Amino acid sequence: MSFSFEVLHNSKGTRARLGKMHTPHGIVETPVFVPVGTQATVKSLTPEELCELGVQMVLANTYHLYLRPGHDVISELGGLHRFMHWDRALLTDSGGYQVFSLSKLSKISNEGVTFQSHLDGSTHLLTPEKAMEIQGALGSDIMMSLDECTPYPATHKESQESLKRSIDWARRSKESGNPGNGALFGIVQGGMFQDLRARGVEAITNMGFDGYALGGLSVGEPREMMLDIVASTLPLVPKAAPRYIMGVGTPEDLIQLVSLGADMFDCVIPTRNARNGRLFVRSGTLNICNARYRTDQAPVEAGCPCYTCTHYSRAYLRHLFMAKELLAYRLNTIHNIYFFVMLMKEMRNAIRQGRFAQFKKGFYSQNTG
Amino acid sequence: MSFSFEVLHNSKGTRARLGKMHTPHGIVETPVFVPVGTQATVKSLTPEELCELGVQMVLANTYHLYLRPGHDVISELGGLHRFMHWDRALLTDSGGYQVFSLSKLSKISNEGVTFQSHLDGSTHLLTPEKAMEIQGALGSDIMMSLDECTPYPATHKESQESLKRSIDWARRSKESGNPGNGALFGIVQGGMFQDLRARGVEAITNMGFDGYALGGLSVGEPREMMLDIVASTLPLVPKAAPRYIMGVGTPEDLIQLVSLGADMFDCVIPTRNARNGRLFVRSGTLNICNARYRTDQAPVEAGCPCYTCTHYSRAYLRHLFMAKELLAYRLNTIHNIYFFVMLMKEMRNAIRQGRFAQFKKGFYSQNTG
Repeated sequence: MSFSFEVLHNSKGTRARLGKMHTPHGIVETPVFVPVGTQATVKSLTPEELCELGVQMVLANTYHLYLRPGHDVISELGGLHRFMHWDRALLTDSGGYQVFSLSKLSKISNEGVTFQSHLDGSTHLLTPEKAMEIQGALGSDIMMSLDECTPYPATHKESQESLKRSIDWARRSKESGNPGNGALFGIVQGGMFQDLRARGVEAITNMGFDGYALGGLSVGEPREMMLDIVASTLPLVPKAAPRYIMGVGTPEDLIQLVSLGADMFDCVIPTRNARNGRLFVRSGTLNICNARYRTDQAPVEAGCPCYTCTHYSRAYLRHLFMAKELLAYRLNTIHNIYFFVMLMKEMRNAIRQGRFAQFKKGFYSQNTG
Repeated sequence: MSFSFEVLHNSKGTRARLGKMHTPHGIVETPVFVPVGTQATVKSLTPEELCELGVQMVLANTYHLYLRPGHDVISELGGLHRFMHWDRALLTDSGGYQVFSLSKLSKISNEGVTFQSHLDGSTHLLTPEKAMEIQGALGSDIMMSLDECTPYPATHKESQESLKRSIDWARRSKESGNPGNGALFGIVQGGMFQDLRARGVEAITNMGFDGYALGGLSVGEPREMMLDIVASTLPLVPKAAPRYIMGVGTPEDLIQLVSLGADMFDCVIPTRNARNGRLFVRSGTLNICNARYRTDQAPVEAGCPCYTCTHYSRAYLRHLFMAKELLAYRLNTIHNIYFFVMLMKEMRNAIRQGRFAQFKKGFYSQNTG
């Protein structure tokens, strides 16, 4: 296993930290935002474009790739990196979240989850061991233990039972043996209850993973509740390991969570919003469908050096989007990913230079939502 | 007007010729294939990618851009080149073909065509003068006179009446005055009747256009009939002007038509087929959905140096296509356009080197349909 993490710098006045993950496919600087490439592609973009945008790591979904084209197919073709022509780091989730959110569930037991494929209705059993086998076959750089994503709302009792299962599955994930060259992260559940989160951290960190994730956040709870859980839970996680908040978030969320000590994030927000015509700018977002952009010569954001802003007007992007042209999704995605990547880079620079607290304050005063 | 055409080389044993068009946006070597960029974009690709593929000229559709976003909008934004970030040559059609094929026709008169927009049902009148005004506002490098595309089948009488109208409209297109910096081509109709085609050529060439197109071909007639019409009509067109066969064709068609003396072609075949998963190879086409490609490590075509073939397996392309991923359409389009661009380049080289007849023979013996 060739994974390591080092903290290079701690922010003063916040818990933000600058770090570096060494993975089998290169260095990843943290805090990092990981774009989602569900089906072995970040929708509409090539790997070369992702590299040019400064993307260091991409997330691929175990659930989707297991069902189509099959992890066995990808393994036979030399692994996911080669399959999708991506030579930087790959993170894979465990499949658990998608099983609960996308498929028709047949049965959850301590053994695992029996589910029906959202593609063809076929029945499958996902166990912690199977999740590891799939991720190993894909050749992931960072694998995740199988967890049960506790829904929101859930009672204390429900959350406790769910946590118990996730802890058990984490143990089995670890015990099944790391099949590849990558790291294995444990996932802490516990719903919206601080005592359960604390218990989750204790159990998971005692097992000793390469990194720790908080799962089950941004599942419908109020934003303040999410931030409270992170604020109270992250300090319990060993400082020496990377801390990953799964499925989050908006630019405001990312800044807030970095200030609480988080190192990694993945989210469909920049890519999905791009395909819906919602583009990120410093002051919030703009909806490219808006008739006000019909003859607007300006780029999405003045001064933005991304490919889209360098060469195209809002008027052209609006035209492409209204005409449902494929290039619309691509140009929008380029801008939004660039926005997120740059935001993380600015945060890293600010931490390095000891001015993260100011950066955060400045960003919020600029941002009007 | 800064347009000129020169013939550099004539093939021996065929009527193929090598030429060069000088346009306000650069040189275009002929014979040339012009990819279709209907709505101010060649679907899924950036202009940089088109340049890298060797595309010298793109066709944009007057009908579509008139309706959305409007030629007035594009003109206000500095013209079509700037709008779509394309600095090589642009060809625009007259809108006639789309009015007849896409919109609900209200009325055809000698004045022009009244039609209903396929987007919102609004009523519009397209006249020869209007077609010129729109193309001028777009800043086209090669504009086309308004014509009536004679359907197939049509009687001699119907074809004759239709030809008469196209001739009248060509005269009015020319007389309305060239609004821009580009060239103006006249279109010869005449259905599938050689006497009418001959009459069409006479009338249109007498008016004196910068180039001549044969329209109303590949509209459902047998391939041999199309080739016969071209074979008998093209020799009547002045040798000094570029000859354009509109809306054609397959690789086999292009080779055959070049050997008959044609210089220019546009067609949706490479781009539309790409989006349908049909990829061009020397021996014909392959359908990337086919289950036989599920674990096929090979590129679409061995030895093809295009971006797609250099980096991706058939298995990955099949996966993307089955998963309806946006990248599928893009990678497929890159390969197919490259195939067409290279085919034209090979033909030009063969003409230059005096071996076009052999090239043609060799291609057919390789190609199994």
